[in-house]
Amino acid sequence: MNCMIAQSGGPTVAINSSLAGALTAAEKSKAFGKVYGAINGIIGVLNDNIMDLSERSASISDFTSRLSLTPGMYLGSCRYKIPAGADGEADYKRIFEIFKKYDIGAFFYIGGNDSMDTVDKLSRYADSISSEVRVIGIPKTIDNDLACTDHTPGFGSAAKYVACTVREIAYDAYIYADPSVTIAEIMGRDAGWLTASSALARTAGSPAPDLIYLPEVAFSLDDCIKRTRELLKKKNSVIIAVSEGIRDKDGKYISSSSERLDRFGHAMLSGAGKTLENIMRDELKIKVRSVEINVLQRCAMHMASLTDLKEAGLLGETAVSLALSGKTGLMTVIKRESSAPYKVQYAETPVSSVANAVRNVPRDFINESGDDVTEKMIEYLKPLIQGEPAVRYADGLPDYLPEEHLF
Amino acid sequence: MNCMIAQSGGPTVAINSSLAGALTAAEKSKAFGKVYGAINGIIGVLNDNIMDLSERSASISDFTSRLSLTPGMYLGSCRYKIPAGADGEADYKRIFEIFKKYDIGAFFYIGGNDSMDTVDKLSRYADSISSEVRVIGIPKTIDNDLACTDHTPGFGSAAKYVACTVREIAYDAYIYADPSVTIAEIMGRDAGWLTASSALARTAGSPAPDLIYLPEVAFSLDDCIKRTRELLKKKNSVIIAVSEGIRDKDGKYISSSSERLDRFGHAMLSGAGKTLENIMRDELKIKVRSVEINVLQRCAMHMASLTDLKEAGLLGETAVSLALSGKTGLMTVIKRESSAPYKVQYAETPVSSVANAVRNVPRDFINESGDDVTEKMIEYLKPLIQGEPAVRYADGLPDYLPEEHLF
Repeated sequence: MNCMIAQSGGPTVAINSSLAGALTAAEKSKAFGKVYGAINGIIGVLNDNIMDLSERSASISDFTSRLSLTPGMYLGSCRYKIPAGADGEADYKRIFEIFKKYDIGAFFYIGGNDSMDTVDKLSRYADSISSEVRVIGIPKTIDNDLACTDHTPGFGSAAKYVACTVREIAYDAYIYADPSVTIAEIMGRDAGWLTASSALARTAGSPAPDLIYLPEVAFSLDDCIKRTRELLKKKNSVIIAVSEGIRDKDGKYISSSSERLDRFGHAMLSGAGKTLENIMRDELKIKVRSVEINVLQRCAMHMASLTDLKEAGLLGETAVSLALSGKTGLMTVIKRESSAPYKVQYAETPVSSVANAVRNVPRDFINESGDDVTEKMIEYLKPLIQGEPAVRYADGLPDYLPEEHLF
Repeated sequence: MNCMIAQSGGPTVAINSSLAGALTAAEKSKAFGKVYGAINGIIGVLNDNIMDLSERSASISDFTSRLSLTPGMYLGSCRYKIPAGADGEADYKRIFEIFKKYDIGAFFYIGGNDSMDTVDKLSRYADSISSEVRVIGIPKTIDNDLACTDHTPGFGSAAKYVACTVREIAYDAYIYADPSVTIAEIMGRDAGWLTASSALARTAGSPAPDLIYLPEVAFSLDDCIKRTRELLKKKNSVIIAVSEGIRDKDGKYISSSSERLDRFGHAMLSGAGKTLENIMRDELKIKVRSVEINVLQRCAMHMASLTDLKEAGLLGETAVSLALSGKTGLMTVIKRESSAPYKVQYAETPVSSVANAVRNVPRDFINESGDDVTEKMIEYLKPLIQGEPAVRYADGLPDYLPEEHLF
């Protein structure tokens, strides 16, 4: 009997650690003859685009430890949802044909919300045809918005990158004696976890960010400008962290006010940061700039959280244990026992309770006026960014494994 | 007799290393009673806003080594040019009054082009009033466009950040099986050095960036689209690095085509990357995205080049030696003896030959079709990004000195 692993959804810095963890545990268990990887998620299963991970692991020295320190998604990704109900029948049939062809006893799917929907459907289908194939989900998302787990692999590293970056942007902004406002726009359209993590940038010597706006609280432009004016009376450099998803009390994205067509007829929708920059400059008549913290949030392996990578690996290992004990239709989760000292347990939850649910920032993690986070949020976030992995450098740059699916 | 140091212009990751180098050399020499720092560049001299660096160095343990690993500008910055001719007289008088007040025998100014103009003017003025004050410039700029030096401190670290970031963005882009184009926009309005350094991201397993466009060669939109179409026949993910300053054969910035007013009447000028993204999406009808590599290019101490920081420090030391040997009106420079093995000498040049000159990328560092760099460029760039400094971490994040001028 063999097993198969696939990855899906957007990348995180930790998703290859989960792959490495599952691979290592599957090999150690000796329960599987071979560990296969499906290229580009469930699409790779449907298209019979399968690679032999056991062979790769045997032929590259330190394969799993190097894999854990490689960004992107080693097996590639897809954004495919199996159609609901009878429309999905053809897919199910094909997938279980492939499982049979490769003598698959367990299928592990590393991904976010949509991938857990696939895990849920596949495990139900297996049940309906009395298949013995175990289907287990392993969570990942930088957005940290999956239900039933204390946090998600990938989030800690993204949070660390955001905090580091906001700290360095603040140092960049401090240098002039003239008043200025700097706006950092951070990912997270619906959940404010990543934007909140900018608060970790603060030190006794560097108080930035001064204001933090999450999508969970209605954004008031007037309040934001008023608070900024007050701050500018006391300091030259005001740093504001905003989620890309901030919206007003009517639920309208702030960025929607900037929509215009350019000369080619393209819709030009500025981001929240850029829109706020333009408005603020107009109101305050001082230097205002915005920085869009970019996709590095999900691929900056050079600033990964060691805690995050370790947890991602252990959730991969846990998934293999669950399958070996005959369980199916589950997602592995992290349960926090305490924040200081930081203690967690690795457990599981029925994947049906995760799929299609979203976990937002609780109101008491945000201050009353909605422009900062509370001490509860800091306590929650702090352990997740601890530790720096020993990224390998060659010729002055991080040295990563080539992505398998490219070749 | 004492000496004084100041910093000016935009920040680089290495500018505090030059400050640390000059401070260390001045203290070691025992020639100066005290080392002062002027807050916010020459403005700090004009306003008598001066701090005692010797005292700070004595009271904070490991001060200079921590300073070398702190981004931003410890003494703050300014963008002030002393008026030319007789209009500058009042400034000169005031500056030399302050020099007298603090018994200054040497003034060190760390900065770019404009700062070297100030060094030139002050040394000439000193000469005209038979002042003994020595005035020496120490170069810095991430743009690498200063004349008379092989390269500038700050550039190597920015180049390393750009190359690391482009490599990680490529891994982020590789994951999908669908065709896509990713455009990375890199700083450098007139000189393409930083954009060129994206070429260092390439490895045997990751060929990105596929195309590189510098401002030194006229940009042809048609050629760029044609080349991209060709590449898409062979691979799914095409990565393009463009300088923010690319312009067409008539010298028009590509971004100028996107100018539009939003509903508040703000001019919305997209960057080169965003403009190219919109055009490409329209032409190719596939997924196209652009990433503006942001200010982290000049403040990401967490990805600094050790070679760069060391050289910045040594140029600071060299400046002190020059002043001690009675010289003035000079800027310290790096002369390269060989690239492999990498060997440089630290020397000096009359600052008048640097001020207001710009050093562009030579044509033979760019390939014939103007969409890539040549092996000469790679040889030139490679040594500059080598080595990783031991950045101190606390609580999961880089631990930097507070910026002096804020307090």
